[in-house]
Formats: sequence, structure tokens, C-alpha cells
Amino acid sequence: MTPEEFRKAGHQLIDWIADYRARIAEFPVMSRSVPGEIKSLLPAAPPLDPELFDAILRDLDSIIVPGLSHWQSPKFFGYFPSNGLLASVLGDFASTGLGVLGLSWQSSPALTEVEEVVTDWMRQMTGLSDAWSGVIHDTASTCTLLSLLCARERSTDYSLSRGGFQSEPQPLIVYVSAHSHSSVDKAALLAGFGRNNVHLIEHDPDYAMRADALAGAIRRDINAGFVPCAVVATTGTTATTALDPIEAIAKVAAEHKIWMHVDAAMAGSAMILPECRWMWQGIEGADSLVLNPHKWLGVAFDSSLYYVRDPEHLIRVMSTNPSYLRSAADAQVKNLRDWGLPLGRRFRALKLWFMIREQGVKALQDRLRRDLSNAQWFADQVRATPDWRVLAPVPLQTVCIRHEPAGLEGEALDQHTLAWADRMNKSGEAYLTPAILDGRWMVRVSIGSATTEHEHVAALWRQITSAAAQSTGTGAC
Amino acid sequence: MTPEEFRKAGHQLIDWIADYRARIAEFPVMSRSVPGEIKSLLPAAPPLDPELFDAILRDLDSIIVPGLSHWQSPKFFGYFPSNGLLASVLGDFASTGLGVLGLSWQSSPALTEVEEVVTDWMRQMTGLSDAWSGVIHDTASTCTLLSLLCARERSTDYSLSRGGFQSEPQPLIVYVSAHSHSSVDKAALLAGFGRNNVHLIEHDPDYAMRADALAGAIRRDINAGFVPCAVVATTGTTATTALDPIEAIAKVAAEHKIWMHVDAAMAGSAMILPECRWMWQGIEGADSLVLNPHKWLGVAFDSSLYYVRDPEHLIRVMSTNPSYLRSAADAQVKNLRDWGLPLGRRFRALKLWFMIREQGVKALQDRLRRDLSNAQWFADQVRATPDWRVLAPVPLQTVCIRHEPAGLEGEALDQHTLAWADRMNKSGEAYLTPAILDGRWMVRVSIGSATTEHEHVAALWRQITSAAAQSTGTGAC
Repeated sequence: MTPEEFRKAGHQLIDWIADYRARIAEFPVMSRSVPGEIKSLLPAAPPLDPELFDAILRDLDSIIVPGLSHWQSPKFFGYFPSNGLLASVLGDFASTGLGVLGLSWQSSPALTEVEEVVTDWMRQMTGLSDAWSGVIHDTASTCTLLSLLCARERSTDYSLSRGGFQSEPQPLIVYVSAHSHSSVDKAALLAGFGRNNVHLIEHDPDYAMRADALAGAIRRDINAGFVPCAVVATTGTTATTALDPIEAIAKVAAEHKIWMHVDAAMAGSAMILPECRWMWQGIEGADSLVLNPHKWLGVAFDSSLYYVRDPEHLIRVMSTNPSYLRSAADAQVKNLRDWGLPLGRRFRALKLWFMIREQGVKALQDRLRRDLSNAQWFADQVRATPDWRVLAPVPLQTVCIRHEPAGLEGEALDQHTLAWADRMNKSGEAYLTPAILDGRWMVRVSIGSATTEHEHVAALWRQITSAAAQSTGTGAC
Repeated sequence: MTPEEFRKAGHQLIDWIADYRARIAEFPVMSRSVPGEIKSLLPAAPPLDPELFDAILRDLDSIIVPGLSHWQSPKFFGYFPSNGLLASVLGDFASTGLGVLGLSWQSSPALTEVEEVVTDWMRQMTGLSDAWSGVIHDTASTCTLLSLLCARERSTDYSLSRGGFQSEPQPLIVYVSAHSHSSVDKAALLAGFGRNNVHLIEHDPDYAMRADALAGAIRRDINAGFVPCAVVATTGTTATTALDPIEAIAKVAAEHKIWMHVDAAMAGSAMILPECRWMWQGIEGADSLVLNPHKWLGVAFDSSLYYVRDPEHLIRVMSTNPSYLRSAADAQVKNLRDWGLPLGRRFRALKLWFMIREQGVKALQDRLRRDLSNAQWFADQVRATPDWRVLAPVPLQTVCIRHEPAGLEGEALDQHTLAWADRMNKSGEAYLTPAILDGRWMVRVSIGSATTEHEHVAALWRQITSAAAQSTGTGAC
């Protein structure tokens, strides 16, 4: 494809994407594909000869789109929002179109320096002090793994430079809550800690980690001959957006000199609102934190910001310096390969840069405030309706609900919950994610798709009550 | 930005990218930025109010482009090629425009199933048997880390499910060569093996790992009470594209039941040419391999293919299954979150799918053959010229060279080499990467940018000889 052919096909594709986004509300939100259906529509072997771009574009319509769940739909209330604002989409296009790579600063200076600037913009926007240094990674899973590797190496005085983790005589302990994200557990196991050494700390009735329980667990572990190594606290847990008490946990962590990582993947976006910053009060006491602008804030996936207070430690754990990557500028610049796992990096900063500039901070704040208000409105409707319950505090934009008609409990209640959620998802009118809370299924209503206005939330509530009523009529009762 | 505003700005950006690619040969290949220059041109604080898209586009021209090294230039001979063919660029645009996420199959079925299909297309294109299952990750660094984690867990019968790596009584050993990529060392250290347990295996005069030396090292380690765990072999090393003897290494690995990972990040693309497949003869004996279509083949970064023979083992090491990610389809589908580190994934398969369809396999083969032929031509010129040496075999598209005028040796020769390479890079007429081989600096000429034709390679040779002559005249002599 020549640049001129690209120009023509590119204009077609821009129109196709603009049309898709304009019509996004018309699609059934959750895909109706059945397993294997898409695969069966595609050739089993690659084409030997070129195909026309028009044929590819037609397949986008006829095969791909029906096989998607539409994350950008105003009727998307599943998981957490993953907004790709159109300005950030263009920033990503610029990155891919330029096709440059950051291996070292020298390999594309602007790639590194714009990343430094926009991660610092985000630091300022979220009210963090200038003691933090940021870098862009793919996901919070990766950032949490980096933190636990940093913790492991700090606790063992760089065992990786000697006999490795296997040479450590005493078990090192990582503290998490039952409401930590699944990636925390995964990171601890991959970093080599072992399931026996990942200790669950009790939470309070609002699903927030108890700092006193953490302090108690650490004392017991020290007495047992273990080495407390790290705690992962969450600002905005996945199930209920619970807020672990950062300040109190940081105090315990400091007392025992253990690494404190804060997973603010979801709630980090809300920190651009000064009125929300109480949610991570004490954050300056953490060693590392992650927040994902690719969620609620609106940067096209993937864009996960990782901040550390001691970049020299991160670099000492992660650095490599083969001759083919050295350059004369190395002493004066950041080489971001030493801030994470991959050597190569895309020009990811562009999508954040485009979005913040095209939106401006105030418009980003206004949109998040709209969503917070919609969530409060929705929670109020649920609370005001007989047989309905809001199951957890609603500090952010996610509301955990259950319909509990008289006489339904235990597994029958679970069946009822899953039935009405399934009915909603199959209707195409909404996408909702059920989850288990205190051993029972409930439904998370996660508001915050960029296109979701109050009218969509109001329609959702009408549809939910109707779906639950139908389920009660035909199902479990 | 509304879809209509996106349409307008998108057309502008498509034209901008088409113009950039059409004019790519005009830019100085290596950026002339000095450290801090880009940063100093950007506001230190984020804008509170929206900016016009035109202002952003202007800054791309005035600030970003001068700060880039132009990887898509026909005069780019640095590192390894990282081609972003324009069809794959459009595939990536479609992915970003759709803005869908793969957390589970259910969260976007087409995302998972197209990934299954295109990784299988690539399996067929590279002549691998159907015993391999593939998945797309970001980079080879990540894939190699996954392999060493899989190896660690296989050797310890899933220590992560118990006391972790720290509970293992005997040191586990990973075998690498001095010519393995820096990411191999990094992966071993991050996986917890420790520097003392990463054993370097000798290479032969062609820089390929010696299988007999590996066998000897394993025997010595077993006698010393160590547990041999994994070997990483390379098809196409970074410094010289050396080819480790895969078949012989696989035999040793099988005998001792150690994990064998093959890093074919660069040379994997060449396996679409049947005449190149001798280079990884015996590959079916490996446990895992990585090849990067985002290098020579032409898929916009990032697109790293990871193939394993036992996906169940990978899944058991990597899996998480929280309630909010479960769906009724789970038993019948692949959930690719359990095939790697991140939970979320972009629709990366689209860029591979677009590229293979728009190009067709034959055109991809033709381009790689062109580059192989250009590399042989270039090596022939070097060999035929007095005072010039080709320092390593040239099985692929990278030629390692040195100008060795009479009387120059040792550090003076190093200074001369770095001087003429620097002169070339500063000229803007080429980008070359110096590297150290056998303790002395040399220059890698890595041919294979998609736009590089024979004329560019011929011009490069004229410029190199001229730069070296000038250096000799003014510099070290």
C-alpha cells in the first residue's frame, strides 16, 4: 500500500469509524455471537494473493462488528468504563502512523520527552506532589507486578544480583485484601512469593482493608519468623469501588518498612476532581501507584500510568545496558526501557497529549462529575424501591445492587439475580457485569461511558426493574 | 470531539500521515534533538481549556517530527527494522476506533477469535506444525519472561501454588549465551533465578551457542547439586543474527527435561520463506517460541507472537478467575487473559489480519527476499574492498562490518569506528547502530525497512566508505 493508496483507504476508514461511533447506540451492547461463530466465517488459511481493501472493510461490517461487545456504547455498564475519546483515538493514529519506537531516548527523543511531560501533567492533575515520577505502561497488572518485584528486591537487598529469590532463607509476605484485583494475586505468584505467602487482610463492612488487621498480621508474621515485604492497597476496588484507608495503611507500612503499592487503576481518574482526593488521603506515603487513564478518563486503551517515588530503585531492578542500546546521550536522559518490562515502546504519550489538549482539564472534570451525579441518582432510585438494595457505599460511579423479592434467598436468589442480568444483557439494551459479594451474586452497574447521559441511566433503571419483574414472574418464584 | 468533528480532524490526520510517509526519505533519519529540547518546547502544566485540533497538528510538525528518528525511512539501518506497513497501520486504526477490550472471550468475541485465526495463519506461514498454539503479546521481552516463569513452575511442580520460589531447596539454572538478547537476562532475574544461576554457554566462532558446551554445563551443574531448568536459544541474535543450533540444543533439553524457549523475534519473519527454515531446524522440539511480526515482517508495533506446545501449562501458571470475569461461555472458549500478564487486551489481531490480506503471502515473501539479496550484495561490496571486513556470517539481512585501516587497532580502532558511525548518523543520510563484538566496536547495517530498495543500499555503501575515509583523515591517524 503506497502513501496515496493509504490516503484513499484511510479516508474510507475514518468515515467508517465516524459512522460506527455515531451509530454506536443502535448496536446490541453485548455481542450475540456464539463460541466459534466468528472463526467459522474466516478462511482457515492465509491468502497468497492480495485482497482489495474494500473486501476487508466489508468484513468489518459483516463479521467483526456483530462479534463485538460495544464498549463505547452509552448503554455499556459492564466491568469498568474503558473510554476511547475520539481525540485520544487520533493521538493513537498519529503514533501508529509515525511508526517510531522508543528503545532508548536516542531512538526517538520526542517519544520519551512527551511521555515525561504528559505523565507530569497527569501528576499535577491528580494532585500528587512532585516527589513522584511517572511512566506509561500497558495495564495495571503489569504495574502491580513491577511493584512486587521492586518490593521483593528491596527486602532482599537485590537478591537478583546474587542467588535469586530461591536463595532467601525466610518466607517474604505480601499483604492483600479479598477485594484486591485478581492481578494482585497473579503478580505475587508470578514474582515467586507463593500462595502461602500472600496473606489476606480482613476488610470492614464497607469492603475496605482494615489497617489494624494489617498491623496485627504483620506482628504475628514477624513472630513466626516471616519477613513482611509488601502491601497492596486499593483506591476503588473492582467489585464495589471500596476505598482502602491509604493513610492508616501507609503508617503501618512505614513502621515496618514494607513496600506500599496503591492500585488506583479505576479511581485514579477521579483524582482530577479535588473534591475526590480524600479517597486516597495519605497517598504520599506510598512507594508506588497505578492509575489507568484508559478507563474512565478516556484515553484509548492501553494507557496505564505508573508512578514511583524512587525511580533509581525501579531502574536498578529493571535495567539492562547492552552495547547496541547505548548512546552518547545516556547520562543526560531517561531510557524508559529501564522503567518496565518491554524493551520496545510505542509513542503512547501522544494519545494522552491529544486528549488533554483537545478536552482541557475542565471538560474532563465536568464529565466525571456528571457520572458521579448519575450514579448517586441511580443509587437513590434503587434505595427508594421496595425489594431493591444497594449493597455497598457508592463513592464513585459504580452501584452494586440486588433485587431481593420476599421469599427468595440462597441459591434461588442467585438464580434470580443471574436470570435478570442475563435477560438485560441479551436484550441488547445494556451490558451489566454480575459479580459475587459476600458469597452471593449481585449486579454491578458501572456508569461512566463517555456517551452515557442521564437519560441512558434513567432508561437503564426502567429496564432493570422490568427485567427483574419478568424473572420473578417466570423464574424462581 | 463528536463523531462529525472526528471525521473532519481524522481526514486531516490521514492526509498528514500520508504526506509524512510520502516524504519520509527527506527527513534526517536520526533525530538531531538534544536532551531536554522537546520538553522545553512544551507547556509545563496541562491546559484547563480546550485547544483547537489544528494547533495540535501544527505541533506535530514543528515539535514532534524534528524530535523523531524516522524508523520508516528507507535510510534506516539501525537496530532491527520495525516496519509498520500502511495496511497494518489501518488495521490498528480500526482497533483503536472500535475501542473494544478483551478481558474474556465474552467481552468481545471477535477480538479473541480473530486472534486465534491470525496466529494460526502465521503458524502455517512459518511452517510450524499444528502442535503449536499462539497468542499475541506486546514484545519478545514479555514472551521470554512468560517462558521462564513456565519453566520455573514446571521444574518446581507449581511452587507458586505453595511456598513460592523462595521455598525451593536447590538452585535452578537457566542457560543462555553471551549473544542472547538483553531481555533474556532481565527475564531470568525478574523471574527470581538470580544472576549466579544464569549460566553462560560458550559460542562457536560464528557466535552460535555450542550444544556440546550446554550438555557439559548441565552435567556439571547436576553434579554440583543444581537443578537445570531452562535454556533460551536464539534464531537470529541481535548483534550478528547468529543461529543457535536448535535441533542439537533441543536434543540436550529433552534429555534433561528442561524447558527450551526459542527467541526468533527477528528471524521468525524469515520463516515465511521455505528456503530459510533450515535456520531453526528442530524447532518442533522446543517448548515455546517468540517471533515479532512488528519487526521485519511489517506489522505496526506492537505485535509479538508467542507460541507454546502446552497451553494448559501456560494457563495454569497465568490463570485468574474472579467472579466478575466469569461468563457462561467460559468452558467453550479461549480466555486470552490466562495466556499472559495483562488482563485487558487491545484488538491487536486486526493489524496482522489487515496486513496479511492486503499484501498476500507472496508479496510478503518477495519483499523479504529483496532484503536478503540486498544484504548479500552489501556484504559482497564490503568483502571486496581493502581494509573492510564482514565480521560474522550473513544468513539474514544484517551485516556486521568494520573498517580496519592499516596501523589502527585497539582503542584507536574503536574510536575510528565510533567516529565514522557518528558521522553517518549525524549526516542524516542513514541511521546505523554500533555494537560491541568480541570486545571491539563494530557497526551493524540492518537492512529491511519496507521502503529500502537496492538504490538506498548502494548509496549507503558509498556514504560509509566516504565517512570512514574522512574519519581516517581527520581523526585517529
